[in-house]
Amino acid sequence: MENTKVSVIMGSKSDLPVMQDAIEVLKYLGVTCEVSIVSAHRTPKRMFDFAEQAASRGIKVIIAGAGGAAHLPGMVASITTLPVIGVPVKSSNSIDGWDSVLSILQMPNGIPVATVALNAAKNAGILAAQILATSDEALVQRIQEFKDELREKVEETAEEVERLRF
Amino acid sequence: MENTKVSVIMGSKSDLPVMQDAIEVLKYLGVTCEVSIVSAHRTPKRMFDFAEQAASRGIKVIIAGAGGAAHLPGMVASITTLPVIGVPVKSSNSIDGWDSVLSILQMPNGIPVATVALNAAKNAGILAAQILATSDEALVQRIQEFKDELREKVEETAEEVERLRF
Amino acid sequence: MENTKVSVIMGSKSDLPVMQDAIEVLKYLGVTCEVSIVSAHRTPKRMFDFAEQAASRGIKVIIAGAGGAAHLPGMVASITTLPVIGVPVKSSNSIDGWDSVLSILQMPNGIPVATVALNAAKNAGILAAQILATSDEALVQRIQEFKDELREKVEETAEEVERLRF
Amino acid sequence: MENTKVSVIMGSKSDLPVMQDAIEVLKYLGVTCEVSIVSAHRTPKRMFDFAEQAASRGIKVIIAGAGGAAHLPGMVASITTLPVIGVPVKSSNSIDGWDSVLSILQMPNGIPVATVALNAAKNAGILAAQILATSDEALVQRIQEFKDELREKVEETAEEVERLRF
Amino acid sequence: MENTKVSVIMGSKSDLPVMQDAIEVLKYLGVTCEVSIVSAHRTPKRMFDFAEQAASRGIKVIIAGAGGAAHLPGMVASITTLPVIGVPVKSSNSIDGWDSVLSILQMPNGIPVATVALNAAKNAGILAAQILATSDEALVQRIQEFKDELREKVEETAEEVERLRF
Amino acid sequence: MENTKVSVIMGSKSDLPVMQDAIEVLKYLGVTCEVSIVSAHRTPKRMFDFAEQAASRGIKVIIAGAGGAAHLPGMVASITTLPVIGVPVKSSNSIDGWDSVLSILQMPNGIPVATVALNAAKNAGILAAQILATSDEALVQRIQEFKDELREKVEETAEEVERLRF
Amino acid sequence: MENTKVSVIMGSKSDLPVMQDAIEVLKYLGVTCEVSIVSAHRTPKRMFDFAEQAASRGIKVIIAGAGGAAHLPGMVASITTLPVIGVPVKSSNSIDGWDSVLSILQMPNGIPVATVALNAAKNAGILAAQILATSDEALVQRIQEFKDELREKVEETAEEVERLRF
Amino acid sequence: MENTKVSVIMGSKSDLPVMQDAIEVLKYLGVTCEVSIVSAHRTPKRMFDFAEQAASRGIKVIIAGAGGAAHLPGMVASITTLPVIGVPVKSSNSIDGWDSVLSILQMPNGIPVATVALNAAKNAGILAAQILATSDEALVQRIQEFKDELREKVEETAEEVERLRF
Repeated sequence: MENTKVSVIMGSKSDLPVMQDAIEVLKYLGVTCEVSIVSAHRTPKRMFDFAEQAASRGIKVIIAGAGGAAHLPGMVASITTLPVIGVPVKSSNSIDGWDSVLSILQMPNGIPVATVALNAAKNAGILAAQILATSDEALVQRIQEFKDELREKVEETAEEVERLRF
Repeated sequence: MENTKVSVIMGSKSDLPVMQDAIEVLKYLGVTCEVSIVSAHRTPKRMFDFAEQAASRGIKVIIAGAGGAAHLPGMVASITTLPVIGVPVKSSNSIDGWDSVLSILQMPNGIPVATVALNAAKNAGILAAQILATSDEALVQRIQEFKDELREKVEETAEEVERLRF
Repeated sequence: MENTKVSVIMGSKSDLPVMQDAIEVLKYLGVTCEVSIVSAHRTPKRMFDFAEQAASRGIKVIIAGAGGAAHLPGMVASITTLPVIGVPVKSSNSIDGWDSVLSILQMPNGIPVATVALNAAKNAGILAAQILATSDEALVQRIQEFKDELREKVEETAEEVERLRF
Repeated sequence: MENTKVSVIMGSKSDLPVMQDAIEVLKYLGVTCEVSIVSAHRTPKRMFDFAEQAASRGIKVIIAGAGGAAHLPGMVASITTLPVIGVPVKSSNSIDGWDSVLSILQMPNGIPVATVALNAAKNAGILAAQILATSDEALVQRIQEFKDELREKVEETAEEVERLRF
Repeated sequence: MENTKVSVIMGSKSDLPVMQDAIEVLKYLGVTCEVSIVSAHRTPKRMFDFAEQAASRGIKVIIAGAGGAAHLPGMVASITTLPVIGVPVKSSNSIDGWDSVLSILQMPNGIPVATVALNAAKNAGILAAQILATSDEALVQRIQEFKDELREKVEETAEEVERLRF
Repeated sequence: MENTKVSVIMGSKSDLPVMQDAIEVLKYLGVTCEVSIVSAHRTPKRMFDFAEQAASRGIKVIIAGAGGAAHLPGMVASITTLPVIGVPVKSSNSIDGWDSVLSILQMPNGIPVATVALNAAKNAGILAAQILATSDEALVQRIQEFKDELREKVEETAEEVERLRF
Repeated sequence: MENTKVSVIMGSKSDLPVMQDAIEVLKYLGVTCEVSIVSAHRTPKRMFDFAEQAASRGIKVIIAGAGGAAHLPGMVASITTLPVIGVPVKSSNSIDGWDSVLSILQMPNGIPVATVALNAAKNAGILAAQILATSDEALVQRIQEFKDELREKVEETAEEVERLRF
Repeated sequence: MENTKVSVIMGSKSDLPVMQDAIEVLKYLGVTCEVSIVSAHRTPKRMFDFAEQAASRGIKVIIAGAGGAAHLPGMVASITTLPVIGVPVKSSNSIDGWDSVLSILQMPNGIPVATVALNAAKNAGILAAQILATSDEALVQRIQEFKDELREKVEETAEEVERLRF
């Protein structure tokens, strides 16, 4: 896809329901993304090739979701110079999500992964947009509007709640 | 400072020994940064003003370090559209760093903080450079060289270790 | 509302089922409260204004509930001189409630939040009444009666259980 | 002591170095306090009598510090109608402070303990002052000044740090 | 009840489904027990009286179950010289049971509580029987038979499983 | 040793500094004990023989201390009908003591271990005495005196602290 | 069974649904296994005999699954010289699986247990095959094919996902 | 090195003091090993090549130590068919070792890592020997002798301790 700047990858198709939030918010913000499955453990070579070629294909930011001993975000970050956003997924084989969080977050010095909250693929999408917006004023504007809508929704529910009789 | 694109802030001067790693790696990568103390809890208005004005002052990425119930990165992120990188600091009043990590990482949908490992200010600096590099080819080059050096250092120690007699 | 001394706020309408316990016990103890939604992250300015004006509106105690990276109680406490009671809510995006608890409890020196148990909005309501009762003898009496009822209920179930044949 | 409104108790003399912060900040804010040792486990009757008589002796707020399986704050709260502030102490026999925190914080519905951060006796003192200040305007003023000083100290270190050359 | 040597108490009737396992295994081993509700927090005086009088009523072992900030076993142990067995209950207001476990287990030096596994009321009953059996040879015999049955059941299922075709 | 009713064993000589507290308090209470090293993992047969013969040698209570994946208390309990008290030791190879605690405490239904706090060998000794005291009135008396001394020591330090000028 | 090289044991029949994954993957890889129930706590002697005789019966690798205070893998490892693979089972009486994991993993120096992820019996089976494959080239081949299939399945779902329209 | 069957690798030279225990015990058991530094994150290609070539170089077992977000053991296991033993190292940037443990242990189905205790490189060495011993009777003998020595050392310290006068 021409002009695709964000790549959303995940370790397994079972991560898709979580990762879809990233795809949707990117679309909402007008950012084109590609989506695929790349498993660090079951397709290490594919992962290697993906990470090595992403930048030359025009990708600017990578979003990688994985669960359990989640090595995908960190391994991709070890190979590319692009910023990598890691989404810890609370998969069925995870110990309450702690393994997913720690094995993505606790990267050694030299190789950062921009980690978001457990299952917070939506925030990964927004963060990717914020990163692209550092050189795209129109995108800044759309992010600002998105934040304004968040605020307005809270203000509406606030009014609703204030009218309730307890 | 003209042309300063990264702002490094922290909740307390006691965070400086940790946060210095961010400042140094940014300098090494040729990225100019400003440094200051902004406390979400002791200077909420200063924090508010800082976050509101950062973008218009030309800042592109904010690095915020804090410990304990660490609200600084998340609160700054709630106000600005800029990408905010959070550094959980294992301060003296922290419960083994868990509070610092969770109160920075677990942001609600809509307001991401790009969290790095506990005390990993160096990675925050590298990540800030990677973000700026999405629109700066020369910086990509410097980051690639930095990664090459990391690799070369490992290769050297590998040779050293392989020569050891156990 | 005239004579309203307690303000019950929460980060999201989804916290209302938990926070309702605070509202109900306050009503039961004869303490008038106001209720609203104030999000530290999605409506930072509204939060700021709320916290700055609460005391001058006659509010004496603030109860603030939030989940995940729960910054609302601590940020409100940073702005007002009023006592702030924090209710960690085990929201859907929380890691078993640990993030909610730690990001409310572990406030730095200078800015206390009176934290109650996970989801324990009822205790937040009672604590608010106890605080007001430090200058309201009639309220002390109602709290004592409330405690007597708790005791009596246990004594009744004790009798019941003692009559059971196992 | 006449006019003593805050009672600071702790389970063991070894908690005194931590609890001293409460005593000092209360003194700084002009609030008179009494100090004693009351052990829920080694002097249960003394604890019972203390809790039962505190209100009639004119005490308005109790600060109770304890570590490990820390039952003192909760047990005192079960007996008195006064607000009880609990300080989890990271004592030598504690598992990283988790036992102290959870056995003070996680009180059942009906019996709140206003819990502050691990070892945060200073915040317990400030919170006690905030509670008394709900009916003492002069004390509100002193708390506001205390908050202003916190802010000013941060602003000073901010200026210092901004002048540093990295 | 004449000859009742074990007292099974719990903080709330909602703990009964868990604690019933203690009652049943005691019955199975031929040990008479009494059962009641005693809440450390809602009936502190009742708890005090219970603990003070248990030994003189002929009770030899106390089993106490509680959840959350579970102070009942430790407080009873602080008052009586009898051995107290604590059962951490994973009640609805507990953080995954950690609070129940730590606030029962981590008693300070001088006041032991014999803690069993989370929800393991059955083991509490067996332990009470083992304690009584230190001066009752017939009871030793019944405990040995109970252990033999455990063994035999495993041996039976082992044979069953060994016959399965996978 | 004639008349020895308590056996204190531990998995390694490195546990002795912790376990010594059990030996001393037993001596103080006038209870004779034997002491040895029995490793579940390095001397499984010795452990087996020890557990099988303890009762017939006249032992009434076993205290077993171990750290890390601490199997000694549970394995001994699986073989003997005697009550077994487990002391989780925070050994050098332990993860903050959590492994020691959980692998002793979380025994399956049928095989209780009376677990005391991390490193709380003193409480193990007191508990052993309390168990023996269920059929030894003189020992009850000594335990009561021990508890009285604990109380008196707190009362003394309380007076001391109350005399301090802060 | 002649030529049976892997023994799959578990502490209770309730572990069978989890452990079945080991049996199935071994079958798939052409490795014959035996299956039985051996409880460290309820059948210590059976466990002892099993461990002592396994090697002489021709068994080369033991897979042992258990939950809670899971002593089976470690105790078997203490008796045999064979490699023992431990499967922590998240049984109903486990605290989120942490007890199972830590009491299997944290073995003291001298007695290793090859621990796999929580409930990961499938990986235990594969690991057993890998161990046997160190002296069986045909088995290496089958393991390689198994890995190839894993890869191919990911590649297929990757293609599927890449064709999706979001 | 001819006849080298075990490869001991680690992510950083700072892991060497821990990993040395593996090297020494292998030497003691008469198993030749090679030692090197291979970083998953700083030398991903080197790691890839190492894992791909290990089997063909005659290596039979790989021991990999790493700390923090420790991806080395899992990534090597994803590439090779050889059994991989993972040693979680409690490095300076680790959160009490939990990240090291979980990111090595919690591997997804299909790709096992034989994980040993935190810092337990000695056990990794013994396990490697046990694996090789499945086809090497002389090595079985040496492992048996090693176990006998462990036992004898405990028996000696047991005698020592039994002679102590407390």
